[in-house]
Amino acid sequence: MGQTHTRQAHQTDIHFSSDEINGLYKTIFNRRDVRGQFRPDPVPDEVLSRVLYAAHHAPSVGFMQPWDFMIIGDQAVRQQVRGLFDQAHTEAAEMFPEQKQDTYRSLKLEGILESPMNICITCDRSRTGSTVIGRTHMKVMDLYSSVCAVQNLWLAARAEGLGVGWVSIFDQRELQEVLGIPRHIVPIAYLCIGYVDHFYARPELESAGWLPREKLENLIHFDQWESRRSADDESVIRQIQQDADFPYSTD
Amino acid sequence: MGQTHTRQAHQTDIHFSSDEINGLYKTIFNRRDVRGQFRPDPVPDEVLSRVLYAAHHAPSVGFMQPWDFMIIGDQAVRQQVRGLFDQAHTEAAEMFPEQKQDTYRSLKLEGILESPMNICITCDRSRTGSTVIGRTHMKVMDLYSSVCAVQNLWLAARAEGLGVGWVSIFDQRELQEVLGIPRHIVPIAYLCIGYVDHFYARPELESAGWLPREKLENLIHFDQWESRRSADDESVIRQIQQDADFPYSTD
Repeated sequence: MGQTHTRQAHQTDIHFSSDEINGLYKTIFNRRDVRGQFRPDPVPDEVLSRVLYAAHHAPSVGFMQPWDFMIIGDQAVRQQVRGLFDQAHTEAAEMFPEQKQDTYRSLKLEGILESPMNICITCDRSRTGSTVIGRTHMKVMDLYSSVCAVQNLWLAARAEGLGVGWVSIFDQRELQEVLGIPRHIVPIAYLCIGYVDHFYARPELESAGWLPREKLENLIHFDQWESRRSADDESVIRQIQQDADFPYSTD
Repeated sequence: MGQTHTRQAHQTDIHFSSDEINGLYKTIFNRRDVRGQFRPDPVPDEVLSRVLYAAHHAPSVGFMQPWDFMIIGDQAVRQQVRGLFDQAHTEAAEMFPEQKQDTYRSLKLEGILESPMNICITCDRSRTGSTVIGRTHMKVMDLYSSVCAVQNLWLAARAEGLGVGWVSIFDQRELQEVLGIPRHIVPIAYLCIGYVDHFYARPELESAGWLPREKLENLIHFDQWESRRSADDESVIRQIQQDADFPYSTD
């Protein structure tokens, strides 16, 4: 099929080599939520374009593509956003049990000013009209589509050597006002993005002892939430137990 | 660093080759929402384990890992789920403008029974207690984490040659009942998964003329939603225009 794009063309030429498959898994397992370690170097236009195309090719309900991408470099805007974070972060600390508040306050949770660029990904709920294929019964599906775009961008960024941190500690309405986002558009993710000195081997909240990595085998159910396992089911669980170290391979 | 996992170990050995980076982009641009073309061959345990680990290594708010994975092979359960789809799909058709209803009804929107396996990914909103880092102000963040797990699984599946289709046309409460999912757990995505005869080169709703692919350059904003572009901004837009065909490369 190659270059021809007939209306129902198949992906006949697509084969994934083991290096290519490995590239995907390596990206997934080594992606981190980056809050520090940002270097000030600008992100080249060609790299930015690639990660934005990756986001734009996320799945979307009814092919709605409800996302927009706000690229925020301006220091004055970012100072305002940082102010919103500071305010919400202070409020947040008070919500934790007293014995956890000091730990919470000691965690670095954003890189708004240190990263060379912020990107806000949004969801335009009215983009393709009020009735959307696949959103008739699950009204949140368009929001979920924009989240898929976030994850695509995050993975592409990691493979390109860029760190990404998702900052969610804001009053959403104030964020919307600071960025001039109209009322019917929902900000989904506010991301800090840039090259980094290094990526951590494990998530920071895991290293800090805040929470452990769950065992995957404990999160699996068969056919019903509460169910007894068949012999086939047990074989899946054994495979999962056997693969427990796989995600941590560094290469 | 290699095998050692000290608490703050860095990813010092991680380098992405051009084949590996290409593997990620190829996966992203060739992933499809698959509704037909499923083959009945079972998914081997080792492949299933890998795609589930990919999902389990999604980002999660406060390292909450709120997801569970329900693997649904049983035909009787899937018949019930299919019944819920049929009912909701009939309701959905009525919601479209009259001139679009026939087209809507002609679209194949699920592969619940033809695919060898369904997977339901959920969100346990109370998994790590009521106060979660990063969820203090944006209450939906845990739902979004589970969506990131969906997207990781979807990409891993594509690289493994597995098609995935997300079915969202259900009454959520009835789905929950059929699968025995407790009230405080939210079903996020009901996925049909299996090997396929072929993947389409483009999204089916695009090929069917339901909606066109948006131009990425029209979805970009700088610093403010409504803003004038600087010379630097124009250079980003020119790069995006230049890359417009990049996502469609088949290899």
